[in-house]
Amino acid sequence: MTEPEIEVVVVGSIGIDTITTPTSRRADVLGGSASFACAAAAKFARTGMVGVVGDDFPVAGRDQYAALGIDVSGLQQVAGKTFRWSGKYEANMDVRHTLVTELNVLEQFDPVLPPAYRRAPFLFLANGAPDRQLRAWKQMEQPQFVAMDTMDLWINIAIDDLRAMIRKVDLLTLNESEARHLTGVHALPAAAAQLLTMGPQYVLIKKGEHGSMCFSSAGTRLLPAYPLGAVQDPTGAGDAFAGGVMGALARAGTVTLDALGEAMCWGSVVASFAVESFSLDRLVEVSRATMEARLAEYRRMLMA
Amino acid sequence: MTEPEIEVVVVGSIGIDTITTPTSRRADVLGGSASFACAAAAKFARTGMVGVVGDDFPVAGRDQYAALGIDVSGLQQVAGKTFRWSGKYEANMDVRHTLVTELNVLEQFDPVLPPAYRRAPFLFLANGAPDRQLRAWKQMEQPQFVAMDTMDLWINIAIDDLRAMIRKVDLLTLNESEARHLTGVHALPAAAAQLLTMGPQYVLIKKGEHGSMCFSSAGTRLLPAYPLGAVQDPTGAGDAFAGGVMGALARAGTVTLDALGEAMCWGSVVASFAVESFSLDRLVEVSRATMEARLAEYRRMLMA
Repeated sequence: MTEPEIEVVVVGSIGIDTITTPTSRRADVLGGSASFACAAAAKFARTGMVGVVGDDFPVAGRDQYAALGIDVSGLQQVAGKTFRWSGKYEANMDVRHTLVTELNVLEQFDPVLPPAYRRAPFLFLANGAPDRQLRAWKQMEQPQFVAMDTMDLWINIAIDDLRAMIRKVDLLTLNESEARHLTGVHALPAAAAQLLTMGPQYVLIKKGEHGSMCFSSAGTRLLPAYPLGAVQDPTGAGDAFAGGVMGALARAGTVTLDALGEAMCWGSVVASFAVESFSLDRLVEVSRATMEARLAEYRRMLMA
Repeated sequence: MTEPEIEVVVVGSIGIDTITTPTSRRADVLGGSASFACAAAAKFARTGMVGVVGDDFPVAGRDQYAALGIDVSGLQQVAGKTFRWSGKYEANMDVRHTLVTELNVLEQFDPVLPPAYRRAPFLFLANGAPDRQLRAWKQMEQPQFVAMDTMDLWINIAIDDLRAMIRKVDLLTLNESEARHLTGVHALPAAAAQLLTMGPQYVLIKKGEHGSMCFSSAGTRLLPAYPLGAVQDPTGAGDAFAGGVMGALARAGTVTLDALGEAMCWGSVVASFAVESFSLDRLVEVSRATMEARLAEYRRMLMA
């Protein structure tokens, strides 16, 4: 028996996080952009992870990836300590402070894609240094669809590399403050119009609890977020959303604005589960049936 | 020939506003909750205004109401000065400072509904003192559907009157910070659940540029706002939204959660025009065809 083909390759960070919320604290849990994006994408399509961890990476982390069905043949383990991040949320979870960032093995990360990944149709360059995103992208043979995420840090310290990378992708996703930061334009339709001139065919703006907006020359799609009663930990919500979008697109097989709109609904549903627990805990346990029930409820809310 | 029956009665404030935005300033323009709500409702249904102005009220104000097709037989003119409000918006229009509030004739406002209004099926108690809202409500014979808006001021200084009024209405609308303020609950689904126990069948939470959410025991409806490139003056957007919802409901004739979802789309479209100009200027000029074209574009964005 041969392994099923990899449909979505995700390149990004893998971290050990320590999270403090107003009511709780969790030390040394699995995090990073690739962890959340892979966990979400793997709900829909065969997903391969490209990242690096140190020799301190816990077996329990690999167990979680296995439970999620993520292919980890692109996961490197090297001497040194795994990337560590620590953050604290204020009372309403809407403001976050970074307490500690230790790059550790992430500093020298050189993404290497296993041969089976290079033929994959979908590539998601989750948040990470744009020069590493580029190195990963160059190893792909002829991907059907490439998306990338980014963050303020790279706009501040690597704008030229970032612009070069943005030129090469089909979809750029980022949050609303990053879209404004990168363009200097406040109104999101105008900011998105400017981002579209930088190369991508689609610009997907993430607004957290306020939903998401996808802009393209073919039109715009607006999606409010699934309304949650209780958020336990918002860390990784944006990565899970984007990973869910990519997984759902890969399952659909073709990318159109309508397919993206549908994939955004799935991304929003997966992200809504991600924030119901710390780390990947809820994503590990949530069943397909539970996800489909929430999607059906969500569609009624959307009048769609 | 007899006049057509009044379908929507709107009770609220009528003001002369002075607005300063980062790029512009307009002195002495028509404003107030009733002005915006009536202008919006009158796009859909025969609307009567209940309010008070002073002897300084300009003829141009009455001309604008006439151009909008608003019935003003419930508009009182008394000795004294019209209510005046002055506000200033910060750089991104998302923070507003009130510079001047002069209640003037609004302080002694005693709403009197003309006989033809009392039989109307729809009553909208736009933002105003809850004891005046109650006096107006008592004059109605048997309205089919009553909605009310409120604001932080009344939560702070008239909470008992406000709670008494909320018990009597079918729909309560307010913005997200007011919903949190009134309930002490941050998560909007939980805040709405608590508001539903206070009497109304529907709670419609306004989130400005982030859209709106309608909660009821029959389910939830979520709507992102129509995305605007350029906002000239956000004053009155929430009043126009709510007025548009009431007008569209009145035109539909029956109120269900689905009818409300549809009416929210219309409310959002009308509000999007309201903020494209100062005061009622854009609402006066926008044609039915232009509104319908925007609704059709909006529906594509909503995937609905």
